[in-house]
Amino acid sequence: MNRKIVHIEDYKKFVGMETVERVKEKAKLLQGLRVAHVNSTFYGGGVVEILSPLVLLMNSVGINTEWRVIQGSPDFFGVTKKMHNALQGGKINLGKRKKQIYEDVVYQNAIRNHLDHDIVVIHDPQPLPMINHYRKKGPWVWRCHVDLSHPNPVLWEYLKPFIEKYDAAVFSLKEYAKPLKIPQVFIMPAIDPFCIKNKRLTEREVKERLEHYEIPTHRPLVVQISRFDRWKDPLGVIRAFKIASKKIDATLVLLGNIAIDDPEGEKVYDSLLEARSEKIVIISREDTALVNALQSRAAVVLQKSIREGFGLTVAEAMWKGTAVIGGNVGGIRYQIEDGVNGFLVSSVKQASERIVQLVKDEKLRHSMGERARETVKKKFLIIHSLEKYLDFFNAFETNYKLNCSVLEDSYLEQSCSN
Amino acid sequence: MNRKIVHIEDYKKFVGMETVERVKEKAKLLQGLRVAHVNSTFYGGGVVEILSPLVLLMNSVGINTEWRVIQGSPDFFGVTKKMHNALQGGKINLGKRKKQIYEDVVYQNAIRNHLDHDIVVIHDPQPLPMINHYRKKGPWVWRCHVDLSHPNPVLWEYLKPFIEKYDAAVFSLKEYAKPLKIPQVFIMPAIDPFCIKNKRLTEREVKERLEHYEIPTHRPLVVQISRFDRWKDPLGVIRAFKIASKKIDATLVLLGNIAIDDPEGEKVYDSLLEARSEKIVIISREDTALVNALQSRAAVVLQKSIREGFGLTVAEAMWKGTAVIGGNVGGIRYQIEDGVNGFLVSSVKQASERIVQLVKDEKLRHSMGERARETVKKKFLIIHSLEKYLDFFNAFETNYKLNCSVLEDSYLEQSCSN
Repeated sequence: MNRKIVHIEDYKKFVGMETVERVKEKAKLLQGLRVAHVNSTFYGGGVVEILSPLVLLMNSVGINTEWRVIQGSPDFFGVTKKMHNALQGGKINLGKRKKQIYEDVVYQNAIRNHLDHDIVVIHDPQPLPMINHYRKKGPWVWRCHVDLSHPNPVLWEYLKPFIEKYDAAVFSLKEYAKPLKIPQVFIMPAIDPFCIKNKRLTEREVKERLEHYEIPTHRPLVVQISRFDRWKDPLGVIRAFKIASKKIDATLVLLGNIAIDDPEGEKVYDSLLEARSEKIVIISREDTALVNALQSRAAVVLQKSIREGFGLTVAEAMWKGTAVIGGNVGGIRYQIEDGVNGFLVSSVKQASERIVQLVKDEKLRHSMGERARETVKKKFLIIHSLEKYLDFFNAFETNYKLNCSVLEDSYLEQSCSN
Repeated sequence: MNRKIVHIEDYKKFVGMETVERVKEKAKLLQGLRVAHVNSTFYGGGVVEILSPLVLLMNSVGINTEWRVIQGSPDFFGVTKKMHNALQGGKINLGKRKKQIYEDVVYQNAIRNHLDHDIVVIHDPQPLPMINHYRKKGPWVWRCHVDLSHPNPVLWEYLKPFIEKYDAAVFSLKEYAKPLKIPQVFIMPAIDPFCIKNKRLTEREVKERLEHYEIPTHRPLVVQISRFDRWKDPLGVIRAFKIASKKIDATLVLLGNIAIDDPEGEKVYDSLLEARSEKIVIISREDTALVNALQSRAAVVLQKSIREGFGLTVAEAMWKGTAVIGGNVGGIRYQIEDGVNGFLVSSVKQASERIVQLVKDEKLRHSMGERARETVKKKFLIIHSLEKYLDFFNAFETNYKLNCSVLEDSYLEQSCSN
């Protein structure tokens, strides 16, 4: 009956015995520790993709880890969605009513969740004010997955007093560091190699998925898988592909989806449709097996973002041994080393040149793809996130109140302004 | 900031000081008790409507009550939906694969939920096998909200070993009692008088909602609010209304919705549409404020079910002081005392006669409506459910292993076959 649970030992085949043993060793000091992760949904989105395997793996190394989800009303999620966008630089009209809804719903959830754990990790802004309603038994950590390069200043000022009640904040990239009175730690996101999106598919499974969507496979595939959002520059991808097509014979597939609450996404999608042709396939669909099949089969995967949080689709494609051309922005730069395990580009022209180069040179794309897979094996699997959390928890165990000197080792970096 | 949380004291205005004090007294022995409720969703359905206020109210009387939700994959919910239908008598092809999905997903949730509470209440079949994965610290209770009059025997035999690991089972009606080796307790569902569906609306709010849906109000309203499902007999309602219309001048409103996964519901809905006319309004919509407005404004509310679990829409309408004509089946018979606070009917003819009688006799429907509201005040508010849980918990506190003699008081009834 337990067959479907991934255990730490299952990672040996990917990262080797040594890494698994090292991670287990780090967990030894934390046996029986009670940890709670709290976020706002069980379904959809990158946070769920990380928490789902991470929580099971933490239990697998002996940490009693729970995953709690808060309940929200439609107006609560209306407010937090606006907050999410504003944290990424969007506008928000932050009136008294919005704050009231936000704080009231979180308070109700605080009543329903008795968090008396040794460590509590609160994810993203939705449950942030939970901390106001507990007497802490151990450190509380705010883990924010949002791109914080340019947060809306009014919103940030409102959230800051909540954040500063925490014992530390965890962000995905050093670039998101903020002037805060608490230590800041940086843990990059990672992928689950055992889930449907990332597990090894057979040739037959790949073929079945591509045929299901009538995707032609007699020419090399050039693929971008990304939300239909102007920051992902799907129009730029089409332009680059059209230029490249003068020199190579390939098929472009754009796979994406439109967030239900994103009217702009619909416009972007519509603007692409006239480009549809025999060689340009545009699909709006949620199908993780199709994502896997496309990333596995593609000659080249693009993630030509103009602006990007982390861009975990890059690691996903790299994991399949595929050569990736990524925009030279945000977290993509932490995944791709230009010319080594992929290419970084800053313009349509550069993208088109790299497409031509990779489609023409099978040997190059295979060697880059192999190095890409090695990069993910070393840095971007869930076990690596786990290890960073363990280092972080161990730092707390030896020193409940973190200070600026605690976390300076190779796994954790931090900034601190107090 | 705490303004939106309902406290036990807020019930004084409905049930009086004495009842509130009695309930608080019963909670005194349970101060600090740690209780967890576990179900499968935060959104939609009767169980959520009960748990949402009940959990807050339990905390309000000093019981540390948590609400946990399990996470399920689409195939898991596919299986449990079939189980739900089969528990109500439907068919199920219960193969090895379905059992595996069911038990694997529950096991994953067991890992993510560290249930070490004094009392654990597991709701409905979805999280039922959780009990296999814990060393119990106190009693575990299975609280089943499903109509169990005729469960599919194959499914029942599969679930029974899980059920019998519990210390007690709670069903909504005595009629659902089963030959089980554990004690069975009966707690009827109840309504939340503070939620949007049941709180007092102003005349203006009622008018606004009805106008929004262009519901004519110049004639008396005859209303049925119920899923479009043949057991709710919407066609019978239309026939009864047409017969009644020969003697009275009224408008019929059928408000319902179709469960997304219910192809039969769509057929039922379509079969009604040809009856639409100037005097017959049929709306498929989820809008709790509209439910409230219709129940508040109606001259008569029908719940002409041919088969019914509990039929909480009856209590909802009675709470608004409206006269209700209910089918003489299931839990409706516990809510309506025929001829006193409403009418029970067993045929289209009877229903049409009662419609005519009530629409013609304003005084009768007002006096019945008043008695209806009194009934709900006495028996079907969340505080009454709370009181029954408290009696139940107190019985455990004095006697962890319940036996057949423990629960025989006026609030709890039980059967036992061991």
